[in-house]
Amino acid sequence: MNIITLTSDMGIKDFYLAAIKGAIYKAFPEANIVDISHFVTPFDIAQAAFILKNAYPDFPENSVHIISVDPESADGSHHIVVEHERQYFIGNDNGMFSLMFDEPPKKVWKLNPPKNLGSSSFPSKSVFVWAAAHLAQGGRPDEIGERIDGVSMRAAFHPVITPNLIKGIVIFIDGYGNVITNVSRSLFESTSKDRKYTIYFRGDSYGINEVSKSYNDVPPGEKMAIFGAGDFLEIAINRGVEGSGGGANKLFGLKLNDIIRIEFD
Amino acid sequence: MNIITLTSDMGIKDFYLAAIKGAIYKAFPEANIVDISHFVTPFDIAQAAFILKNAYPDFPENSVHIISVDPESADGSHHIVVEHERQYFIGNDNGMFSLMFDEPPKKVWKLNPPKNLGSSSFPSKSVFVWAAAHLAQGGRPDEIGERIDGVSMRAAFHPVITPNLIKGIVIFIDGYGNVITNVSRSLFESTSKDRKYTIYFRGDSYGINEVSKSYNDVPPGEKMAIFGAGDFLEIAINRGVEGSGGGANKLFGLKLNDIIRIEFD
Amino acid sequence: MNIITLTSDMGIKDFYLAAIKGAIYKAFPEANIVDISHFVTPFDIAQAAFILKNAYPDFPENSVHIISVDPESADGSHHIVVEHERQYFIGNDNGMFSLMFDEPPKKVWKLNPPKNLGSSSFPSKSVFVWAAAHLAQGGRPDEIGERIDGVSMRAAFHPVITPNLIKGIVIFIDGYGNVITNVSRSLFESTSKDRKYTIYFRGDSYGINEVSKSYNDVPPGEKMAIFGAGDFLEIAINRGVEGSGGGANKLFGLKLNDIIRIEFD
Repeated sequence: MNIITLTSDMGIKDFYLAAIKGAIYKAFPEANIVDISHFVTPFDIAQAAFILKNAYPDFPENSVHIISVDPESADGSHHIVVEHERQYFIGNDNGMFSLMFDEPPKKVWKLNPPKNLGSSSFPSKSVFVWAAAHLAQGGRPDEIGERIDGVSMRAAFHPVITPNLIKGIVIFIDGYGNVITNVSRSLFESTSKDRKYTIYFRGDSYGINEVSKSYNDVPPGEKMAIFGAGDFLEIAINRGVEGSGGGANKLFGLKLNDIIRIEFD
Repeated sequence: MNIITLTSDMGIKDFYLAAIKGAIYKAFPEANIVDISHFVTPFDIAQAAFILKNAYPDFPENSVHIISVDPESADGSHHIVVEHERQYFIGNDNGMFSLMFDEPPKKVWKLNPPKNLGSSSFPSKSVFVWAAAHLAQGGRPDEIGERIDGVSMRAAFHPVITPNLIKGIVIFIDGYGNVITNVSRSLFESTSKDRKYTIYFRGDSYGINEVSKSYNDVPPGEKMAIFGAGDFLEIAINRGVEGSGGGANKLFGLKLNDIIRIEFD
Repeated sequence: MNIITLTSDMGIKDFYLAAIKGAIYKAFPEANIVDISHFVTPFDIAQAAFILKNAYPDFPENSVHIISVDPESADGSHHIVVEHERQYFIGNDNGMFSLMFDEPPKKVWKLNPPKNLGSSSFPSKSVFVWAAAHLAQGGRPDEIGERIDGVSMRAAFHPVITPNLIKGIVIFIDGYGNVITNVSRSLFESTSKDRKYTIYFRGDSYGINEVSKSYNDVPPGEKMAIFGAGDFLEIAINRGVEGSGGGANKLFGLKLNDIIRIEFD
């Protein structure tokens, strides 16, 4: 399919992104470049991992994903390619790959780029493009790197689960101000077993007794819980949008890492 | 041509847009995806309609346009495809299609998606992509939906016309701060009949006696009227830009829905 | 390769950019459109030139670049195409092409568009697209314009060089807050001749004695100098980002056109 995606914290104002795209087309003219997001909070590898985690499952097999967030190898980190569910992920092994999938990936290669690739201050354009062009053209990872045992691990915040309680945290706030937690639909359903429940946030200040199927299941301006596009539990306000009346994050004062409790009867 | 365009209010920071693009390539690898705008004011269907109205005429025949603004079917609305001037438009029948063309469209199908398309909270990725992939590959609308009588109507603000007066309103303010009205070139010319005129705004505070052919017809910093890219009458300031000296909107205090009067001698 | 790139100050919120893309696909369905940047400061031709200067070398031969910044011909300027290093550059001859390359370009044609191209208020969609589609399909410049002597010149700020000193200025501040000067790596190295040096900025307030090879050569939060992606000398702070702790521009109070001095022993 020739798909090479780009995820970064470099924005779209400067010339960096264009230089990467030019370099990709120079290396592989038939590439199909897709922007995932260039507005990752700078150096926030957890956010980059979360965005990829929610985007890659919709991409076709053999897609190649370049992640340029904290891309410089340093302190012993190195540039790697990960193969997962028949897709490839290229970036700096700074811990983000341990957060990107349900399980840490097993198929990992340390990239072994040729010496003449150019400026060490911009590996996304040199090393990552070189590797992506190879893979997108059907090349194998073992032709450009050596197999290693796994990726660098970074502590992930997993929900705390007891028989009658799930305690999760806010891991992403989207452009509408919707507040996305780390409680997946499958975790919720396996714990719930069809019991009644209340979703609490801001301590006990707010409670919701139902998960809606679509945003319009509640009146405009009403708070709600829903499994959003990535199938994670989300606190939202129907048609409440940050900047024009306020999304859920502003109205409830919810921030990243705030706690959400789900108590089951 | 395989063109599928995307218009939305979802921004480009989150993973939603990327997930839609991945889903399109999975369904139709040869798709040519074009972003129209992802910065429609959230839930503002009139603005979405205006952007499409000005963009689609430049696209080739058989282009397929997905509009993801207020995309959830609710209160009896449903997902539809519209065929107009040999192009296709897919979205929620929330009234926006009645504002998108000079006349309400006649060829309309209510989409009849298969049951297994997935999450009801993200129809843009499921229903709209399914329909777009079908049409962009040459499929017919009647294969994916049933013909219905027309689209939901929403009151449009048409200019008020008397023999010596056109009274329009501001319908869009662009990134330069240019103030675009709902007075089209054809309406202006058919009413004007080569008479002299004055364009008034902010009551009688400002008047312009001429429509320029290009922005540089007046000195930098000078107010002007012009038929802009979409052939609607526009109040502008040559090289006056919001944020760096002020566009017309800031300098004249013009907002959406403000009245513009054109009096003919 | 069919590549047509777009650089502009029109942003991505309005319908202008989409209309241009539609017009390109209508004229040349196999075009491969690449966005370089649409966030040039409005009418800032020096910034547009700098972005192109840093982006085009990574693009393949025969790429066609449309630059829509101050695009209206006026005061004797006209629309031109420049051929440089086997790539094409299309825009208004407002001085920016004299700043885009190390030397003013020699191969220049004044475009001679057909009369029926449409609205004079939007030449980027009419004249530039017409010319780009011709060139991207393998057409020659002399088929769409007449050869002229060169481009309009605009004074560039070149560094001042004495045997023991380079005096440059800040010419770009990127999205991370990195401060990019007009001192190229080649100028620095040919003047330095391996001598010791100090890079001063904000008068004598700050000094740096070393140029790092990668951002992580200094601890997070530490000031540094580096030859960045475009091989120009840059003042940066490792992981210091505007908005989250402050990039170099904010922390040092550096602005466009501020002076940077490099004194050699």
